[in-house]
This record gives sequence, C-alpha cells and structure tokens, in this order.
Amino acid sequence: MNLLRIDASIQGPRSAGSALADLVSAEFVAERPDATVRTRHLGAEPLPADLWATAVGAAFTAEADRSPEQSAAVARAKELADELASADAVVLALPLYNWGVSQHVKAWIDVAIAGAPTGTRLLDGTPTVLIATRGGGYGPGTPKEGWDHSIGYLRRIVGEVWGADLTLIERELTLARVSPAMASLVELADAVQQQAEQAAVDAGRTLAARVEDRADAA
Amino acid sequence: MNLLRIDASIQGPRSAGSALADLVSAEFVAERPDATVRTRHLGAEPLPADLWATAVGAAFTAEADRSPEQSAAVARAKELADELASADAVVLALPLYNWGVSQHVKAWIDVAIAGAPTGTRLLDGTPTVLIATRGGGYGPGTPKEGWDHSIGYLRRIVGEVWGADLTLIERELTLARVSPAMASLVELADAVQQQAEQAAVDAGRTLAARVEDRADAA
Repeated sequence: MNLLRIDASIQGPRSAGSALADLVSAEFVAERPDATVRTRHLGAEPLPADLWATAVGAAFTAEADRSPEQSAAVARAKELADELASADAVVLALPLYNWGVSQHVKAWIDVAIAGAPTGTRLLDGTPTVLIATRGGGYGPGTPKEGWDHSIGYLRRIVGEVWGADLTLIERELTLARVSPAMASLVELADAVQQQAEQAAVDAGRTLAARVEDRADAA
Repeated sequence: MNLLRIDASIQGPRSAGSALADLVSAEFVAERPDATVRTRHLGAEPLPADLWATAVGAAFTAEADRSPEQSAAVARAKELADELASADAVVLALPLYNWGVSQHVKAWIDVAIAGAPTGTRLLDGTPTVLIATRGGGYGPGTPKEGWDHSIGYLRRIVGEVWGADLTLIERELTLARVSPAMASLVELADAVQQQAEQAAVDAGRTLAARVEDRADAA
C-alpha cells in the first residue's frame, strides 16, 4: 500500500500547497498506518531540462544503438511512469506560476508520458487528490478571472489522459499576508485557507476509504 | 534594427514551426536587409531547470550577500528580459507538446519575467509573430476540440502580460504525413500547410512594415 506524493513549489517550507499536502498525507496515514509514503519534489529537485528530449529521441533509436545517455533517459522516463502506475493513491501539490503550469510539473508530465506506451492511463482509476494553489484571486468578476491557465490543463492530463479518480482542492489568495497590495484581502484569504485545510483533512480520509473500496472490489 | 527569433521544437530540422519561422524571417530580411537576426533555440539548448528558482530566490537576498550562482542567475534572467525588451520585431515558433505549453518555453517565460521589475511589458507594442504548431487536429467538432492548452496561455503572456502587437499563425495536423493513423488527413493537412506557409510569408512582410511604421512614429 503506497501513497505517492508530488510537490512542485519553489518556496520550500513556505509552500501553501505543500502544507495542504501535509494534511492530506497525515490524515491518510492515520487511517492507513500500514501505508508507505513515497515523495518526489519537482521544485526542489527538478528533472534535468534535456531529459525529455533525450528520452523521446532515444525512442527512434534501436535499443542496441543507444548512447549511455539515451539509455539512462529511457530508464528514467520508465521509472517515472512506473511510479505513477504503481501508486495506490496520489497527492499532487501543484502551484500556479506566472498564470500557467509550473515548468517543473510540465517537464515531469512530458517525461512520464514518454516513459510508457502511447495512450497508457498511468493513473487508471487511482484515487488522487490534486491541490492547486494560487497567489492571487481568480474568481468570477475579479480582474484576473480566466488567468489561471494551469488548472484546466492539469485536470486534462491527470483526470483524462492518465484517468485518475480525481478530487480537487483549491486555495487562492495565498500571497494575501505577504503582499502589501493584498492587505484588504487578508480576512477573505484566511477564510479560504481554513476551508482548504478542512477540505484537505477530509480528502485524506476519503482517499484512504477509496483505496479500501478499490482493494475490496479487486 | 534587430529581429529576435525564438525556436522551441525538440525536433531540430524536422520542426514544422521552425520551417514557418524560416519563411517569416527570410521575408523580413528581404524587406529589411539591414536587419540583424538574433536567435535563441529553447528546444536545442534549454535553460537549466534550476535557473528560475535560483533567480527568484536571489531577489530576496541583498546583492552583496548573493552567492556566485545567485548572481549569475540574476544576470541571466536580466539578459533574457533585455533581449525581449530590445527587440524591434519578434518571431516565436512554439509547438504544442502533450496538449500544453512546451516545458522549455514555460521555463523561458518564468526566467524572463523574473529578469525585469514586476509588471514590465517586455514587448510593449513590439510587432511579433507567434507561430503555433500542433501535431493533431483540434478544430470544432473533432475529438480533441479544446485540448490545445498552450495557445490561450501564450496569447495571455506574449499579448497581454508582455503587450506585444501580435500576429498569430497556426498550423495543425503536422503529423499527418508521419503518423499512419492520420493517413486520411493528408490532403487536408497539405492544404493547412500551404495556407500557413502563405500566412508566414505575408507575416514577414507585414512585420517589416510595422517596424517601419513604429520607427516613423517615434
């Protein structure tokens, strides 16, 4: 029984998304003390920028003719794909950066897709919590409505392409207590944070229950 | 007078987007033989995966206290921002990869944004051709309608955040002659290619004219 946890913040211990993932993970482990938690931090230890292109290029080269670098890239891509495919449950803490997907998350998605045959549903029915955090506000009627270009893409890949059984937790206004320009939003931001924290605890419990249900059904 | 050209394909000389950028560039130079073309290939020589986080982290460290690595990252980010800000015209050949923005393009966007004060319009009014290429078909009524999660983001950054005077050239079905599953689409794909090539030649000419207009107005 294993929970795969992926973080992607470049803020280290100050990450709002990682704090929520802590809550999900702690609740999951409380429910399932036998679980192993595997972690991968894409923000702290990003994949090399040339890994994906090397792995893709290697796919057009016969195995015997591959350079050591190509073989290593293919093995690494397979490892990342297998890590997803073998997870019983998944928690993803993926922040919005510059109104789009984290560069490190996109690199990981590319490599994982390259690591399995085309069309492989790497998370086929796997209970998965996706934590999406945003520094500002993007709600209806706000100036930045429609500027979150990450969440739609992440749902597409994790939910549709990989086929995960997806629970989404969103927390925005994470910079309200940091940015002076957002001072008037602090109260609202605190309420949003509280809701997200409760949702994270609930999601950890639900995640454990869903893993049980799947195991029972299998 | 300089034209900045950015490529991002991982396909090298087989890139459909780069071929269109060649046409734009050639036409531009034919109109403006005095132009210097500066090139940056994000796919062939990607930015290091830790550059952005290092540059962002350095912003919170006093200049005198920065490590050599931090100082280098800050200088590199400024260089990329300045490269955009000092361009008279820009051509961007940015492919869709795994239904999203190229990881290398997102890394470049992050670093360039980090290299200038918050809110800087790096391409304020700069005539810019954005070439967006896609392997499959994403038109209305097709199974992958809505799966291009790159173009909306690129327009947002290049057109709105950076403020470029944007001309968009799109070519899809670029894999029709490569992928056996797309054999029935070859004729359509060829027509799409011809249209895109004509649009690229026209855009190169228009780009030169717009640079003249701007110079006259200044």
